Amino acid sequence: MNERESISDKFSCLTGIKFKNADILVEAVSHRSFKKDVSYQRLEFLGDSLLSFFTSEYFYRKYKLFAEGELSKFRTSIVNRENLSHVFTQLNLSDLVFIDRKSFKDDIPESIKEDIMESLLAAVYLDGGIRAAKKMFKLIIKNSHSVPEEFFAKNQLQELSLGRYKSLPEFKTVESEEKEFVCRIYVNGKYCSEAQGKSKKECEKKAALLAFRKLEKEIQ
Amino acid sequence: MNERESISDKFSCLTGIKFKNADILVEAVSHRSFKKDVSYQRLEFLGDSLLSFFTSEYFYRKYKLFAEGELSKFRTSIVNRENLSHVFTQLNLSDLVFIDRKSFKDDIPESIKEDIMESLLAAVYLDGGIRAAKKMFKLIIKNSHSVPEEFFAKNQLQELSLGRYKSLPEFKTVESEEKEFVCRIYVNGKYCSEAQGKSKKECEKKAALLAFRKLEKEIQ
Repeated sequence: MNERESISDKFSCLTGIKFKNADILVEAVSHRSFKKDVSYQRLEFLGDSLLSFFTSEYFYRKYKLFAEGELSKFRTSIVNRENLSHVFTQLNLSDLVFIDRKSFKDDIPESIKEDIMESLLAAVYLDGGIRAAKKMFKLIIKNSHSVPEEFFAKNQLQELSLGRYKSLPEFKTVESEEKEFVCRIYVNGKYCSEAQGKSKKECEKKAALLAFRKLEKEIQ
Repeated sequence: MNERESISDKFSCLTGIKFKNADILVEAVSHRSFKKDVSYQRLEFLGDSLLSFFTSEYFYRKYKLFAEGELSKFRTSIVNRENLSHVFTQLNLSDLVFIDRKSFKDDIPESIKEDIMESLLAAVYLDGGIRAAKKMFKLIIKNSHSVPEEFFAKNQLQELSLGRYKSLPEFKTVESEEKEFVCRIYVNGKYCSEAQGKSKKECEKKAALLAFRKLEKEIQ
């Protein structure tokens, strides 16, 4: 088995994605320190913008009540060096990379891991089309740092309430005597949940999560 | 005919693209100054990244010998406020826009034209899928400021020569007595073209364009 086939098999084992043309996979994992005339850089250029598009679409469709500023923050939570190099590590891709191991004695630097996640996405796209690339994107999302559930709770509750009752939930938040905050949530005019917290934001998030879980249970 | 149908018909006349769901088209052309609760901003968020991806792919496939830094420059030549508002004007989209005409007495500002080109691309994508969006993208490219032919001539010549003769063309450039530069190009070892210019770069571009046209003619 030659090197190209071997790397293609390894990639398929790690990701479940098979390449028709292994050359482009080799290009995607080749750092310029290894061979002078092969490098992932053009693919990384394409992959960077493809990842940004997929991530934008993902959050656009998932959070219909969020404004563009918030969507942009969510996108950045995926498309950033730290997260992408984390995904690279989660997917165990280090062995695949062609790099001058003498120059990079310890581990592969985060910046190169990030680049290779992007170049791989482009390679999968060019080899297997948009569907294959979306499969790869799902792997990226699945292996990304997760955003805390509370972060989205308020939004999800709003969507659920709007969808079912055509009205937004009502948040009533007051400061308690012990200098804590208490938030009560009313959905469709009825009391639904309550939570305490050290700030207005904190107790509203907590109460929203409780309310969301309660309403979700009612559906099932 | 109601407003939604009318705007959908107008858009179809101007671009050849028909919407199944006119609501999303209305959203794409609605500035927040017109109606408080409808605005193109979420669509613009999505369209911005889709346009960046399409443009990256376009140049990635078109110029195989260019490095990522140059590809990035080409992308910027399309994805920038001045060019996108130029495309907007070329496509005659002003009448479609829902905007408070009193606040914007003269013309629609460039920044809004740019936003709407992007939001429209996203709307076409969400309504008609990737194929419809690529049709819209072709219109954007077709109506963009063109990059001077000489700019790419050297690269196109290199690709042609590599593809046909498996070798790069040879550029021999010397300074003439009149302080002008002369470039002679040899393809596959044979003399092909010659040009003069005030700088090395200029005469090489000119000579490359001549050589490219000559070789192209030979194919036909």
